[in-house]
Amino acid sequence: MVERGRRGDPNLATVARLAGVSVPTVSKVINGRSGVSPTTRRRVEAILHEQGYRRPQSVGPVPILEVAFRALESHLAVEILRGVETVARQHELAVAFTEIDGRRGAGSERSEMSRLRPATRDTSPPAGRTWIDEILARRPTGLIAVYFESDPRQQARLATSSIPVVALDPTGEPLHDTPSVGATNWSGGLTATRHLLSLGHRRLAMVNGPADFLCARARLDGFRAALDEARLPFEPELVRPGRFRFEDGVEQGLKLLRMKRRPTAIFAANDMQALGVYAAAHKLGLRVPDDLSVIGFDDVEFGQWATPPLTTIRQPLAEMGATAARLVVELANGQQPAHNRVELATTLVERSSTAPPATR
Amino acid sequence: MVERGRRGDPNLATVARLAGVSVPTVSKVINGRSGVSPTTRRRVEAILHEQGYRRPQSVGPVPILEVAFRALESHLAVEILRGVETVARQHELAVAFTEIDGRRGAGSERSEMSRLRPATRDTSPPAGRTWIDEILARRPTGLIAVYFESDPRQQARLATSSIPVVALDPTGEPLHDTPSVGATNWSGGLTATRHLLSLGHRRLAMVNGPADFLCARARLDGFRAALDEARLPFEPELVRPGRFRFEDGVEQGLKLLRMKRRPTAIFAANDMQALGVYAAAHKLGLRVPDDLSVIGFDDVEFGQWATPPLTTIRQPLAEMGATAARLVVELANGQQPAHNRVELATTLVERSSTAPPATR
Repeated sequence: MVERGRRGDPNLATVARLAGVSVPTVSKVINGRSGVSPTTRRRVEAILHEQGYRRPQSVGPVPILEVAFRALESHLAVEILRGVETVARQHELAVAFTEIDGRRGAGSERSEMSRLRPATRDTSPPAGRTWIDEILARRPTGLIAVYFESDPRQQARLATSSIPVVALDPTGEPLHDTPSVGATNWSGGLTATRHLLSLGHRRLAMVNGPADFLCARARLDGFRAALDEARLPFEPELVRPGRFRFEDGVEQGLKLLRMKRRPTAIFAANDMQALGVYAAAHKLGLRVPDDLSVIGFDDVEFGQWATPPLTTIRQPLAEMGATAARLVVELANGQQPAHNRVELATTLVERSSTAPPATR
Repeated sequence: MVERGRRGDPNLATVARLAGVSVPTVSKVINGRSGVSPTTRRRVEAILHEQGYRRPQSVGPVPILEVAFRALESHLAVEILRGVETVARQHELAVAFTEIDGRRGAGSERSEMSRLRPATRDTSPPAGRTWIDEILARRPTGLIAVYFESDPRQQARLATSSIPVVALDPTGEPLHDTPSVGATNWSGGLTATRHLLSLGHRRLAMVNGPADFLCARARLDGFRAALDEARLPFEPELVRPGRFRFEDGVEQGLKLLRMKRRPTAIFAANDMQALGVYAAAHKLGLRVPDDLSVIGFDDVEFGQWATPPLTTIRQPLAEMGATAARLVVELANGQQPAHNRVELATTLVERSSTAPPATR
């Protein structure tokens, strides 16, 4: 805890007298509360400033809504935080966040979700404290856990703490017994594939996520369902696992595009892999979308800045963050949420990386 | 403030007795403090859980370090937050953030720094409260203000509040009298241009930021200094202003590349504009880097996923965040910082978008 030096403070009554207002009005100004006209506020502030007033540090509780990420992946995290903040603001909660990857108490490893380049880490956490200790010590109004796996010990500690927890789970692996928010991964896979089929593609491939991620499985099942619908055979060699990284898109994309009968369209299970497929196509002298259609998943901000702009399936991350925040506030108010699991709809975002196949 | 229902709580003495530990130990477990062995902690937690204990809400102050962004630009914000969190953690401070763009009290407009796509905004802030009111009400240990302009009224309110403020300022516009952290924009411009010159380019263009941004001016001056050094004339028509957006890179890139004597290399004053120049080149059938070298500025995460991967000048955003956090903590401790303005070095990150010019 940071200590702060104090100067000799003027009496609030003196300030009130000098400003020609009541002491409660001075107090309102000091504490940033409403109900003071702008001119009065300015006058009181000027006098407080002249008199060398320095506000005492933290006296009441500061209600915060905590968001804990396994790994702060830029392109996903900010959208989520933005949504959380929108709701938190209504409830006058501050949004605090923690990145728990690589920390003690972070549970089992899940390296594929780790950040893709190392952040500055010039310090270690205070000895003997885990991220759960840190969060408990802050006493947040609620906790939104993003990309967590279920860890019974951590859950027990959180349960004991009486801090309401909601899992925000783009990967589709709900924590047991914990209310959670996700996206419709299966429908997204179906929609992506139907889009490629509607353009006339008949030889479709997929660069999927890790086989043990439920979201990857759901997207693959959507892919298969669309193929079935179109009465096209499912060819297992056309589905390749990645780890949701750019590099996997390059590697698996090269394998697919070097096949004797190469696919005319690739569905990548996230946008980074889709951009990796772009690089693979480029390496082989194939143009997107002329020689190869590519569709991603997530709708990360930078997809629109790729050449060509990326067609993708949008996960509404900001809305997911907002929904998780509403759930946590309900729980904190002692209400039981209407649903223990909410899945928000994914939608097709059509840009320029998909087109009818070239006639060969 | 969110209220929470309570259940009948067991006496801590009862829990201590059942667990065979002292009451202070139970208290440590409840409050997430260290000094309890893992096995004891587990035992106490199990008993607390059995006994239906629910921790009372927020009794002490929660020290938070507030980060306020004018606009939460994904690709820059998370790097900064990451750096802030590293330092905050050492001091057991929670990191909270606010996005103040589009809010009351946000000061004058600066649309070019606004977010590039609208976030979900299903609510407005509570009536009559500005972001400054909200921050004051939270009583943070300190405030890091990112991309702010100087607004005398806001500064006066913050000064009165006695909350220490540090400006983190990638745009290079320091607030008067406020300690600030930035990057060496001029040197970055010089380095980018020297890199292009060293590859043999002699006809260089620049897509700059807005003329009234100090950082854009500094980068341009670095560009000119490198041309002078190489005894090349400065041709004003080869420098075009943008607003740091992808679209500006496309538009200004097209203008430059349609010139009768087109440049063989373009320095874009940020990475998004650099990717816009990629799109412009693509539209004209020019290949990067074979027909055109492109260098950016910032080193946003997704530059490495472009085709080809983007050569750029790195701003150390995480380090800048960490430095700002250290400064704020010093100020909160009543120390005077050694320097009122710290500029961290920019560095060349060489990838694949720059190459020697084609011999024509």
